[in-house]
Amino acid sequence: MAKPLSVALLGGGTVGAAVARLLVEQAEDFTARVGSQVELKGVAVRDASKKRAGIDAKLITTDAAGLAASGADIVIELIGGIEPAKSLIETAIKNGSSVVTANKALLAAHGAHLHKLAEEKGVDLFYEAAVAGAIPLIRPLRESLAGDKVRRVLGIVNGTTNFILSKMYAEGADYASVLAEAQALGYAESDPTADVEGYDSAAKAAILAGIAFHTNVTSEDVYREGISKVTAGDIAAAKSMGYVIKLLAIAELSDDDKGVIVRVHPSMVPQSHPLASVRDAFNAVFVEAEAAGQMMFYGRGAGGDPTASSVLGDVVAAARNRIAGSLAPAQSIYADLELRAIGDAKTSYYLNLRVADVPGVLAAISGEFAKHDVSIQAVRQDGIGEDADLVIRTHKATDAKLSATVDGLKNLAAVKEVVGVMRVEGGAL
Amino acid sequence: MAKPLSVALLGGGTVGAAVARLLVEQAEDFTARVGSQVELKGVAVRDASKKRAGIDAKLITTDAAGLAASGADIVIELIGGIEPAKSLIETAIKNGSSVVTANKALLAAHGAHLHKLAEEKGVDLFYEAAVAGAIPLIRPLRESLAGDKVRRVLGIVNGTTNFILSKMYAEGADYASVLAEAQALGYAESDPTADVEGYDSAAKAAILAGIAFHTNVTSEDVYREGISKVTAGDIAAAKSMGYVIKLLAIAELSDDDKGVIVRVHPSMVPQSHPLASVRDAFNAVFVEAEAAGQMMFYGRGAGGDPTASSVLGDVVAAARNRIAGSLAPAQSIYADLELRAIGDAKTSYYLNLRVADVPGVLAAISGEFAKHDVSIQAVRQDGIGEDADLVIRTHKATDAKLSATVDGLKNLAAVKEVVGVMRVEGGAL
Repeated sequence: MAKPLSVALLGGGTVGAAVARLLVEQAEDFTARVGSQVELKGVAVRDASKKRAGIDAKLITTDAAGLAASGADIVIELIGGIEPAKSLIETAIKNGSSVVTANKALLAAHGAHLHKLAEEKGVDLFYEAAVAGAIPLIRPLRESLAGDKVRRVLGIVNGTTNFILSKMYAEGADYASVLAEAQALGYAESDPTADVEGYDSAAKAAILAGIAFHTNVTSEDVYREGISKVTAGDIAAAKSMGYVIKLLAIAELSDDDKGVIVRVHPSMVPQSHPLASVRDAFNAVFVEAEAAGQMMFYGRGAGGDPTASSVLGDVVAAARNRIAGSLAPAQSIYADLELRAIGDAKTSYYLNLRVADVPGVLAAISGEFAKHDVSIQAVRQDGIGEDADLVIRTHKATDAKLSATVDGLKNLAAVKEVVGVMRVEGGAL
Repeated sequence: MAKPLSVALLGGGTVGAAVARLLVEQAEDFTARVGSQVELKGVAVRDASKKRAGIDAKLITTDAAGLAASGADIVIELIGGIEPAKSLIETAIKNGSSVVTANKALLAAHGAHLHKLAEEKGVDLFYEAAVAGAIPLIRPLRESLAGDKVRRVLGIVNGTTNFILSKMYAEGADYASVLAEAQALGYAESDPTADVEGYDSAAKAAILAGIAFHTNVTSEDVYREGISKVTAGDIAAAKSMGYVIKLLAIAELSDDDKGVIVRVHPSMVPQSHPLASVRDAFNAVFVEAEAAGQMMFYGRGAGGDPTASSVLGDVVAAARNRIAGSLAPAQSIYADLELRAIGDAKTSYYLNLRVADVPGVLAAISGEFAKHDVSIQAVRQDGIGEDADLVIRTHKATDAKLSATVDGLKNLAAVKEVVGVMRVEGGAL
């Protein structure tokens, strides 16, 4: 049997503690699967005085930089955020360690740089846990679908917003009260911005898009709208029409196959669609490839043990490669497709307008749609006193045309208020 | 760039033709992803006179043995069945070729032998397409979950039986007429035994169980019941109680963690369960692991292009390994768990009994359950003339106890007929 492999763990939070515990509990299995012992040599934390269940106190250190530079076979980074995580990973790679990380924000910002560094130094950089927690998604996309042409990746990749939207849907509650409840339960951070404004989903969308389309994609390239403006009224209206509202991350090839559009925004999804029944902290991702057709991957998107499962799968892979002297495929960005703006996305809209209930209104409104070359699929008009409530669903058009139509509607005398506008996804799935 | 890699294809049927076509159509992408050209050097078929769309006629040969022995970098076996596929794969491995196959029957019978041979010769043996067509399942189980402990794998892995059962459910039609229709449409073979009697599912269950539990499992180790005895009445009864009937492949750890039970049989699944909505030719597999929790993988289980997608993902992986001089992890069977019989499986039953409608019958019947230590969850009794129709759902018990209870019921004077017995799965998911 090969000599023992050393693992250094940066970060002792929920996931870190689960990783440390499972490395000990499953030690025999790791040895058998790797072909060598896998030994935890240190855990770097911010506060060494804090008791941490599952972590041997002797392993605790506050010297993260020292541990990262210790030349361990594998360094696991679970600190999150850009710094000091970025510097620590650079240090680890420069010292010849393979790196396993769950850090979506860092990868979505500096992935290409870190991949390049890892390739130069001949070490592995793995990050299955960065997207969709326990669900194997990075490896299937990167390896199993390597012989196919991915056209679209679409999914729910943030548990906090999914919990909030699920609860708003089930209880008719408003956003602020459900957010407060999620914070009290620990499902949302005290500063929830990264989740509710879609930054977390955008980072994951960038990572998935990069792998699926063999192109370097960063968070900056992702169109992003969060859920903080979704009202109880929006959800009730969607419900009455047979839809739920989900925060979706979508990455797709443009019609001409030469561009990629990556976007995160609340979307109406038909209740019969598999994504509609993905509740609470679960994640689900659809992948559509030319030969394979549609696939769905579903499971727990967060949590200590589920995320640790992904991290440890990567640890086993990195450990096997250390022993065999081999490496996983390097980052593949040869396609280098053009990153297109949201305006190029083909989508359809649901619009809710308050209009004057007088003859000729529908003609004026439908004329505005025609002017922008947007075709209407369905219209429903309900009188409410002097006004009427008009609900319109469009056929697919570019987001630019749809958006211009909405702007035009706002300037029509007959339109008193644009009450709601939302994109619709999942119709064709 | 490394020198071109050669690929030999054994089998020119639907999947083979799709593989040959995609290798040409996507040649540029293969080159970029592999780091070298991937050239198809020959396609072995039985009948060289047959026109094959997508395959260059110059590549066609009837000399499969010669092509297998040609020392190609990668040999793809898509002939199916045990012989000559087994001998051809042995020949390929002995000549230093890495092998990609979709042959579930062969792997479930001789997997350990072929893996050993490949390991000895230092070549890869890949088979993502052998289970669940396009769905990445083998690689996630073997690699992504390598740091976790799988407890259960449960799924729909045969499209033909799923098509038949879906249609029986939707139309209330009987088995024979739907099978005839499936045969006319090409969804079922003229001899449908391998599909409808569960042999195909059993082979896939053996392969999945082997990987999930790090134990050598063959088809012989799998308990197997097909769908040919499922009646329109069974399906109508299940429907009226909120269930569908699916042919499930199930592999699970025994309660003491020391054994594995692998079984294929028709099961009642609640309509609300995600597996219930898996229709026609789609496959779906649940995986339950200790840290990761529950995951589901869903997609197309068969067909030329979807299966070719999986084959080509393996070709890319094998090709990258050839260039890097590395190998995928060898077969992992270190756990060597005991293979237990169906009697040890913990499950619950739905029973439909025709009984005499007289006082004391329920007491006699429930006494029989108690005698075998089986707890009843629910009973419904409907009078029909002189008789009564009794529907009983049990709590979970070992299959041995449930089976003994059914035998005991058959001998009770009060029981006129055991109309139907079926296992129930998916309650806890």
